[in-house]
Amino acid sequence: MKLKVMQKKLHEGLRTVQGAVSRKKTLPILNGILMEFEKDKGIHLISTDLELGIETWIETDIKKDGAIVLPANNITAIVRELPDEVIDLTINLDNYSVTLKCLNSKFNINGYNPEEFPALPSVDNPTTICIDSGKFLKIIEEVKFSTAVDETQPALTGALFFIEDDIMKMVSTNTYRLSYSQKKIEDSINNSIKAILPGKALNELSNLLTKDGKVQVEINSNYTSFKFGEITVVSRLIEGEFPNYEQVMPEEYNTSISVDRLNLKKATKRASLIAKQDSNIISLKTKENDKLIINSMDSDTGSAHEELSIEGKGPKQNINIDAGYLLDVLKVITEEKLIMELVGSLNPLAIKRFDGEDQFIYLIMPVRPNA
Amino acid sequence: MKLKVMQKKLHEGLRTVQGAVSRKKTLPILNGILMEFEKDKGIHLISTDLELGIETWIETDIKKDGAIVLPANNITAIVRELPDEVIDLTINLDNYSVTLKCLNSKFNINGYNPEEFPALPSVDNPTTICIDSGKFLKIIEEVKFSTAVDETQPALTGALFFIEDDIMKMVSTNTYRLSYSQKKIEDSINNSIKAILPGKALNELSNLLTKDGKVQVEINSNYTSFKFGEITVVSRLIEGEFPNYEQVMPEEYNTSISVDRLNLKKATKRASLIAKQDSNIISLKTKENDKLIINSMDSDTGSAHEELSIEGKGPKQNINIDAGYLLDVLKVITEEKLIMELVGSLNPLAIKRFDGEDQFIYLIMPVRPNA
Repeated sequence: MKLKVMQKKLHEGLRTVQGAVSRKKTLPILNGILMEFEKDKGIHLISTDLELGIETWIETDIKKDGAIVLPANNITAIVRELPDEVIDLTINLDNYSVTLKCLNSKFNINGYNPEEFPALPSVDNPTTICIDSGKFLKIIEEVKFSTAVDETQPALTGALFFIEDDIMKMVSTNTYRLSYSQKKIEDSINNSIKAILPGKALNELSNLLTKDGKVQVEINSNYTSFKFGEITVVSRLIEGEFPNYEQVMPEEYNTSISVDRLNLKKATKRASLIAKQDSNIISLKTKENDKLIINSMDSDTGSAHEELSIEGKGPKQNINIDAGYLLDVLKVITEEKLIMELVGSLNPLAIKRFDGEDQFIYLIMPVRPNA
Repeated sequence: MKLKVMQKKLHEGLRTVQGAVSRKKTLPILNGILMEFEKDKGIHLISTDLELGIETWIETDIKKDGAIVLPANNITAIVRELPDEVIDLTINLDNYSVTLKCLNSKFNINGYNPEEFPALPSVDNPTTICIDSGKFLKIIEEVKFSTAVDETQPALTGALFFIEDDIMKMVSTNTYRLSYSQKKIEDSINNSIKAILPGKALNELSNLLTKDGKVQVEINSNYTSFKFGEITVVSRLIEGEFPNYEQVMPEEYNTSISVDRLNLKKATKRASLIAKQDSNIISLKTKENDKLIINSMDSDTGSAHEELSIEGKGPKQNINIDAGYLLDVLKVITEEKLIMELVGSLNPLAIKRFDGEDQFIYLIMPVRPNA
């Protein structure tokens, strides 16, 4: 069978589904992308690593149904290097190969039997809700970086996601720091949603989501799907119990300070140059409620001392934290000023941003009390 | 002792000497940069890994002589992150440490005894010549990428550099491909120069040289130095015999073709996507003197076929080469068209560029004859 598609459209489609292509070598067909050619509809691209699946559509004129699986790396690299012109595709349904012609270039690519490609799970009897795409993107960005890398506690490699009435919340933690974000949504549901979304799904969603439009979320007890534009992301949910995060959220504070985000970022980055020679620990001290002092020391390298103007109230504070955890959150907050709330040197440091009714709280556990 | 220097100037100076800082951990002081503070002159920065040395000057007001060695990575990273303001330096000559103050930041950095830092070699009784900086940069760029990485034949890890009368030549080869470049210079010398410049010196020169100005070259039988602006690069020469490259330079050709460089680059890049799955071998075929066909094949992946318009004369040719060697040269040639000269499938492919009296010849050895 033969069809035509613009290079730009095909490349965009192939890039969209790239994130769910399996990186493991155990099942070669999962290193491929399923291309279904559907009459009067277009090209349906599907990838999955059995945990995550992505599908999208490319609109183009198709006269006859057919399908093939092509190795993701090869087909994407080749299409990327072709000029922005019409590509003539000839699919050989007998030996699972395809010929691409574009101006003076011609490629034959060997593929796989499309019938061997696993079907994406369908989310049966789902709870369905529609969320503003920009809000969903933002809640994901505020939370995804705090998931655990270590897989000994699988629940921590994802983020707890829940919706009650018209409030959406997301929480993640690696037990040393925690992200909590809460946003009001326009749609609302009768029954509540509570599930652990895998970190990989969050990363792919943050790559693919745009600020505009709506995301349709479907969820049951095992799977969830996110539909936006021509794209659908399907993911298995993580089983297990998410730790009781509410227990560590400080209910009150002793000292509250307001600090310029960019100045804090630069000072922390510099102090970290010394701190990272060892364990990346910096100390934060408040002084006279108008200065924040950041210190770091490494016995071989030397020491750093940074002073920042703040507006604060409450007793003096002194806390030791991992500079990396502070820098991480300073990348996702975009507001000019942020709030730090402290209880004491043995309690978590809370970082909050100003933004009306939506809430974002980030906790960094202290490293060790001062001598 | 105390002094002031602008962050921008200090950072530029530290970056300039970075390339000769030793990466090996055997002699820690060589991971440092020697800073000599010279009264009424400025800061003299020096780095060396005992093969290569770089020095530069930063103009600033200095009241008293002094010196210190500071760890290159730390001091450069810290100065890079400081704001573009005055840095107050306090050097403690007793315990080899320095304090940097810049606005609200203060760093103490531990260093080394400057007396333990090795002196850069001086190039005694040199032959001296002055070369246009842009020409010298260009000859280096045309040649440096063809040096051998493998150190079994040390002479091949550098480039043969020679000057006779007013002609400067540079040659490098890893035995599978060869770069030869020749340029007319304005200055001329009575006795000739012939030496092997290390690949590392060529890389640093190509990082530091600018298109404008002059380079003063000094050379004797063991060392060479290159002075331009405030910068001096000193390098040990490679001992040993450079292979007789003239022997492989084809004296005549059977077929000559002219081809568009950008189209050739794109087509080679695409064909290489298939070829690199295996040994990265592509075949070049001329057809009717108006087409160049590039083919590649991998039994698992598939095949690529590219056609390019050419202007040619001579018998049909068919040669197999490593696509990577062709792509390398297409990065350094900037002319719109290039010339390929072929003798036969067992002889090197020669690539030349048009540019009046300067010469550039690049040879790619064929991989295997066609069956």
